[in-house]
Amino acid sequence: MQERVPTFGYRMLAQSGAARLGEIATPRGLIRTPAFMPVGTAATVKALYPEQVAAAGADIVLANTYHLMLRPGAERIARLGGLHAFMRWEGPILTDSGGFQVMSLCKLREMSEEGVRFQSHLDGARHMLSPERAVEIQCLLGADIQMQLDECIELPAERTQVERAMALSLRWAERSRAAFARLGKPGQALFAIVQGGTDPELRRRSAQALVAMDFAGYAVGGLAVGEGHELMLATLDGVVGLLPAGKPRYLMGVGTPQDLIEAVKRGIDMFDCVLPTRNGRHGLAFTWNGRVNLRNACHAEDAGPLDPESSCPAARDYSRAYLHHLVKSGEYLGSMLLSWANTAFYQELMAAMRAAIAEDRFASWAAATKRRLAASQTD
Amino acid sequence: MQERVPTFGYRMLAQSGAARLGEIATPRGLIRTPAFMPVGTAATVKALYPEQVAAAGADIVLANTYHLMLRPGAERIARLGGLHAFMRWEGPILTDSGGFQVMSLCKLREMSEEGVRFQSHLDGARHMLSPERAVEIQCLLGADIQMQLDECIELPAERTQVERAMALSLRWAERSRAAFARLGKPGQALFAIVQGGTDPELRRRSAQALVAMDFAGYAVGGLAVGEGHELMLATLDGVVGLLPAGKPRYLMGVGTPQDLIEAVKRGIDMFDCVLPTRNGRHGLAFTWNGRVNLRNACHAEDAGPLDPESSCPAARDYSRAYLHHLVKSGEYLGSMLLSWANTAFYQELMAAMRAAIAEDRFASWAAATKRRLAASQTD
Repeated sequence: MQERVPTFGYRMLAQSGAARLGEIATPRGLIRTPAFMPVGTAATVKALYPEQVAAAGADIVLANTYHLMLRPGAERIARLGGLHAFMRWEGPILTDSGGFQVMSLCKLREMSEEGVRFQSHLDGARHMLSPERAVEIQCLLGADIQMQLDECIELPAERTQVERAMALSLRWAERSRAAFARLGKPGQALFAIVQGGTDPELRRRSAQALVAMDFAGYAVGGLAVGEGHELMLATLDGVVGLLPAGKPRYLMGVGTPQDLIEAVKRGIDMFDCVLPTRNGRHGLAFTWNGRVNLRNACHAEDAGPLDPESSCPAARDYSRAYLHHLVKSGEYLGSMLLSWANTAFYQELMAAMRAAIAEDRFASWAAATKRRLAASQTD
Repeated sequence: MQERVPTFGYRMLAQSGAARLGEIATPRGLIRTPAFMPVGTAATVKALYPEQVAAAGADIVLANTYHLMLRPGAERIARLGGLHAFMRWEGPILTDSGGFQVMSLCKLREMSEEGVRFQSHLDGARHMLSPERAVEIQCLLGADIQMQLDECIELPAERTQVERAMALSLRWAERSRAAFARLGKPGQALFAIVQGGTDPELRRRSAQALVAMDFAGYAVGGLAVGEGHELMLATLDGVVGLLPAGKPRYLMGVGTPQDLIEAVKRGIDMFDCVLPTRNGRHGLAFTWNGRVNLRNACHAEDAGPLDPESSCPAARDYSRAYLHHLVKSGEYLGSMLLSWANTAFYQELMAAMRAAIAEDRFASWAAATKRRLAASQTD
């Protein structure tokens, strides 16, 4: 008998308009799509136990290459048995390439054809991130889904700048692909990143060139960086149709519940965003009836929970008055409960989207849900 | 049929030397003694879910009157159904009187026969804490075990100062008792606090006067405030024998595992201390083989757990390398895991003491355990 080779693959199960229900098979388990990936920047989804992340319904988490290469170091994690064992997450993990964080966190950096040299924001130590090194690091971590190194620039920017960065990202995509062919393990996947700012022509050239290279999945990068909701959706409208139907599509760094609904409506399958946990740490809760600012004094004597219908104990079992007290007092438990409740809400949102697509009622579900979410109780 | 009136009472089950195994009956459940009470200052044991505190084996938690009277306010907690519902802790709760925190946290305060006037360390608002108000607040919170207001002074101090504070605390004990007789509910208990610094004669006068007043339990206060381990134990030696055998004895604000063992050996039944959670937030773990400083670089590549034998997932399932990384990165999960592990260790320690007393081998157990604990692996 031959040993079965682990494989990676996307399968679409149903469609409702352009919205897709599907699943991504990985050696570490299925990812139900549309999927939201909780962000575990430094190998921990902030203020949550890994068991809570899984119980909330997340099939996959994201971790940040930039943070982990600096601390504790990719080689160290490899010696310790890889990122899954290190952070006690048994399901699939997606890692970014580190490029975006270098741009946003490092004041001292130098771009070249080869890659980007930068100084760590932690201790000033010098590092080099090339397409090859980014893949090498992600392989050391043992990431199931890896991302090519790209150059992500702030918007708005001059068209020549956007074009230059897009073209560089294409050459880096090719080099990433070659490195992954050498270093990647069976069942692991490398995704390309479509760049080109908000320019439809640049986005088209980027998408077509990357599709020709045949990646396992395609991300749309360089959005949610200041261009606004409408321009982001217009850009998506132009890009998604150019991507192959048989591969997963990932919108990076997005977003609010409304963003997710609109992107799924356009055929996006995967998301990641720090909003649920970051907002949780700042006293903001997402609920089916809009956002709730627990700092607001109106909650001080409210004995009711965030959401009596939630399956998450944080949203269901603790009073708003107690959450208000914890947030005002700067207590750990406030961040823990709200990050948990928000992580669970995002997973409930994705599950509801999947159910609506399966029953081919996504458009009406989306319209009704967006009305509820817009209530924004106490902002 | 008559409804049974809820009662409070201590029962000694076994003795090993002066060490006592017992149980305190309260309407909210039994407290197995010797007992360690995790500290939930602001109605939360810092960085732990209440379910974790209970699962670790704690029968009772402590909450701080001073913090809760300032935020969210005792009347507010009463309107919300009391402290148990507020913080989701179903077992017994002990509250202190607030006096100690006024002394240690408020720079602006004024003592008088009536009580202590002070300004909140949060917002500068003026408050008055009298023996009557301290009992009233604790009744509003719904505390099962309440403490008299006392004056706790820093050591070393002039004997006349210590005597004056001890005498004032006796008069406040009498007033607390009268207030509690009016406001306390059936099954709730008020404890007196023996004062007198490290002066055996003052301690004796305090203890005898309080015993004559007949309280439900007796605390030894004003220790672990700078006098040192040996002087603390010498003071205990003089006091414990003066307390009635049929009432629980509580050593306030103590201490290290070694402190607890020595105090239990002298007949103390109850303890509270911030050490397990505070040390946890600072990267220090308590284990059966001594303290472990997770900041230390020697843990950076240690794939082993804190304690493979522990029943606590935090101590058993996560690598020291990961804990080191979390602590160095200032991640919430580091504080969460180490506070959890330490809280569980303190409960394991108390359970081991109870077992050793039940089998009348406390002295040999204590000697062996103190040797193991002294290892102090990486301080």
